[in-house]
Amino acid sequence: MSHSLFAADTWRHLDHTHDPALTSWVDSANQPDTDFPIQNLPLGMARQRSPQTGDDGAAAAGTGTGTGSFRPMTAIGDQALDLIRAADAGVFSEPVATALRACESLGLNPLMAAGAHLRGDCRLQLFAALRSDAPAELQARLSQALIPLSEIEHTLPCRIGDYTDFYAGIHHATAVGKLFRPDQPLLPNYKWVPIGYHGRASSIGVSGQTFRRPMGQTKAPDAEAPSFGPCKRLDYELEVGALVGVGNEAGQPIGIDAAEQHLFGLVLLNDWSARDVQAWEYQPLGPFLAKSFATTISPWVITAEALAPFRRAFVRAEGDPAPLPYLDGAANRESGAISIQLEVHLQTRAMREAGELPARLMGSDFGDAYWTFAQMLTHHASNGCNLQPGDLFGSGTQSGAAADQGGSLLELTQGGKQALTLPNGEQRTFLQDGDSVALVGFCTAEGRRRIGFGACVGTVLPAVG
Amino acid sequence: MSHSLFAADTWRHLDHTHDPALTSWVDSANQPDTDFPIQNLPLGMARQRSPQTGDDGAAAAGTGTGTGSFRPMTAIGDQALDLIRAADAGVFSEPVATALRACESLGLNPLMAAGAHLRGDCRLQLFAALRSDAPAELQARLSQALIPLSEIEHTLPCRIGDYTDFYAGIHHATAVGKLFRPDQPLLPNYKWVPIGYHGRASSIGVSGQTFRRPMGQTKAPDAEAPSFGPCKRLDYELEVGALVGVGNEAGQPIGIDAAEQHLFGLVLLNDWSARDVQAWEYQPLGPFLAKSFATTISPWVITAEALAPFRRAFVRAEGDPAPLPYLDGAANRESGAISIQLEVHLQTRAMREAGELPARLMGSDFGDAYWTFAQMLTHHASNGCNLQPGDLFGSGTQSGAAADQGGSLLELTQGGKQALTLPNGEQRTFLQDGDSVALVGFCTAEGRRRIGFGACVGTVLPAVG
Repeated sequence: MSHSLFAADTWRHLDHTHDPALTSWVDSANQPDTDFPIQNLPLGMARQRSPQTGDDGAAAAGTGTGTGSFRPMTAIGDQALDLIRAADAGVFSEPVATALRACESLGLNPLMAAGAHLRGDCRLQLFAALRSDAPAELQARLSQALIPLSEIEHTLPCRIGDYTDFYAGIHHATAVGKLFRPDQPLLPNYKWVPIGYHGRASSIGVSGQTFRRPMGQTKAPDAEAPSFGPCKRLDYELEVGALVGVGNEAGQPIGIDAAEQHLFGLVLLNDWSARDVQAWEYQPLGPFLAKSFATTISPWVITAEALAPFRRAFVRAEGDPAPLPYLDGAANRESGAISIQLEVHLQTRAMREAGELPARLMGSDFGDAYWTFAQMLTHHASNGCNLQPGDLFGSGTQSGAAADQGGSLLELTQGGKQALTLPNGEQRTFLQDGDSVALVGFCTAEGRRRIGFGACVGTVLPAVG
Repeated sequence: MSHSLFAADTWRHLDHTHDPALTSWVDSANQPDTDFPIQNLPLGMARQRSPQTGDDGAAAAGTGTGTGSFRPMTAIGDQALDLIRAADAGVFSEPVATALRACESLGLNPLMAAGAHLRGDCRLQLFAALRSDAPAELQARLSQALIPLSEIEHTLPCRIGDYTDFYAGIHHATAVGKLFRPDQPLLPNYKWVPIGYHGRASSIGVSGQTFRRPMGQTKAPDAEAPSFGPCKRLDYELEVGALVGVGNEAGQPIGIDAAEQHLFGLVLLNDWSARDVQAWEYQPLGPFLAKSFATTISPWVITAEALAPFRRAFVRAEGDPAPLPYLDGAANRESGAISIQLEVHLQTRAMREAGELPARLMGSDFGDAYWTFAQMLTHHASNGCNLQPGDLFGSGTQSGAAADQGGSLLELTQGGKQALTLPNGEQRTFLQDGDSVALVGFCTAEGRRRIGFGACVGTVLPAVG
């Protein structure tokens, strides 16, 4: 088909929802540095923490202290809005309200399955209700459905049936490849195939996730036999995650021009990695226990609609091959890339105890990804594999081109050979127990409000035993 | 702990359920060649097909023509017994009945989560109700709950959260390795690490599954660039699947002595593979689209209890390293292996149209696996990864040591270089459209009734377009 949701005029009826002059009656949403202006309206699953633990925000995050059901919510400024209560207040059309109510306890999957058009309606209706000029009576009712972000706890935004991790960060693939093959960093298939592998779904958690340092088999190059013990080269990976909206039937591929209609929105994703375990286990079938102990995503899904103003042309470097026709579409070329500023921040236990803020380790731009999520999705379904609402894709590590833009410690320390020195004098080659890693993501563009992704934090606990 | 479910006396209270002298009032269960004598009592999810299509058994299999809910059932001779109706008839204790009722529409996951002890109770109670000496009144009531196997349709036995495919067939790993590395067929990690990778859960289907020949990117060695088209080297893989019962919390490994308590039962598993796609895509992160288009399992889960008489010592060949301590337990050594006779049968479209039976291509023994499922499970959870009830493990291709015992066409045809000739004169290097592959599995031992796995059939449809 020639018309696609991805074409320049796709979101025209939503254009005013990006107008930076429009403000919300929720004052905090109008602060210039908020992640959640009225132009964002992310979607997540949350509930209010129990009053007993509500005072201890930081410690209680992610520990499941609340007692009510998890409900679909949006974030606006420093508040969360309960969307089922908003539906009760008459904010939504009947189809949107029905889809949102179906999400209670289950996750956003029913909304994901309902498609991009309904999601656009949801955005429009929420926008109208939260605008400064919304009816005073509605404002009063919705004020009752606001919960400070500091008082909520999240669960995963949806039931994730399958998780696929791609490898679309060419700077990462090149830097890591160089460590193993200085003369041929990129394998011959890299510029043709959106390389990916199936990941572990059960161990995906939301921001606030803590996990024990994994145990595993490793073998030193000079050792006669491997041994089993705590991972010594524990790392993070800075990725963007995409959640699938509408799926496809088995045997029914999704053409590149239709791919964007199947993408619901984006999150930040930390693909925690045990480098020493990976090095010993990964031949010939790929990473397994080196990755499956934990994966952390940010709880607020930034919708495709919110990201529309930050799209840009998808271009290949001079001399690189054009994608094969099944991965090459006009809309993908015109606006397939999305510019998202990405950063990694690290807070050690000593920093936390001293009240020091996390240190920024690097920054990169998701617009540099070698493949778009539309291409990854089309490739994924090209063999007839059925995708389902809530499936998660990881982008692969998003490093920048420069040496100080590595999206993992493996890159920043050149395979552990050159330690990083933190502002407080501590050094790191790989992660230590007690370290917290925060991924940061936000979009900016001339004449647009900043759209942020919110927190994606995970913390390393000591190994068992 | 020193006592384990795996020790020799574990199933002593179930010993009489293996007594070959005991028969059922369901006459067909007493035929010597049935897969489902009273000593088996497998568990699955099924429903009666609608009467309109009930006459056309073969064509309707797996097409979802029934209208009622899928319910937990067992197979006995040529009949299926609806276990919720059996619960209504008073067959089960209250805890077992409650777990079985919770499975309706959902799958066996609640029963899986309830643990090995309750599953043993379920077996005992079913056995008592189906024995020849069961009360006549009970026989009369249960007769009403029997449905001929030819009139039921299956869905997956459980909701499969994550699917992990291992590589525990050493003869397969050696044969395939030889095709690529004649001088070093097995990689250095093979005898130390139960190699595995995450598989695609969404495309797993039950026996009767049909799927389109996958499209994919391939590159001929002499081609300048890859191309996209139908897979030319489509293959099957003969595997055994294991379903996880009770899971573990994240960060809480499962010791080798406790591993058997977490295994619910076994199925047959066909890991369909696109060899040409795999060859081009798999470096460096492993198989992806070459496997994700379809995986077929047999619908009846053969429980750990039914398989107890076929256990045998797990021994390593002279000169092979002992497993590292975390994978080495006394019970695993004593009775960790399970002897299951495995076969692959092929029926081409021409054979089907001529009314010819499938041709047997090979046979092997699962007792030859290099790792036990207990070891795979302990290894999987050793990094803290949380396993969940209903998770599926594949064993990897189970080939025998001889060249004619290859568990895939890749092996039987030496990489496609030497075609197989079928009884009707047709030749095959890889699968053609219309081919059906049937996996067969059964256990036999001196003085024991034969325990069969039932059908695991899948059929290749032409590629899209």
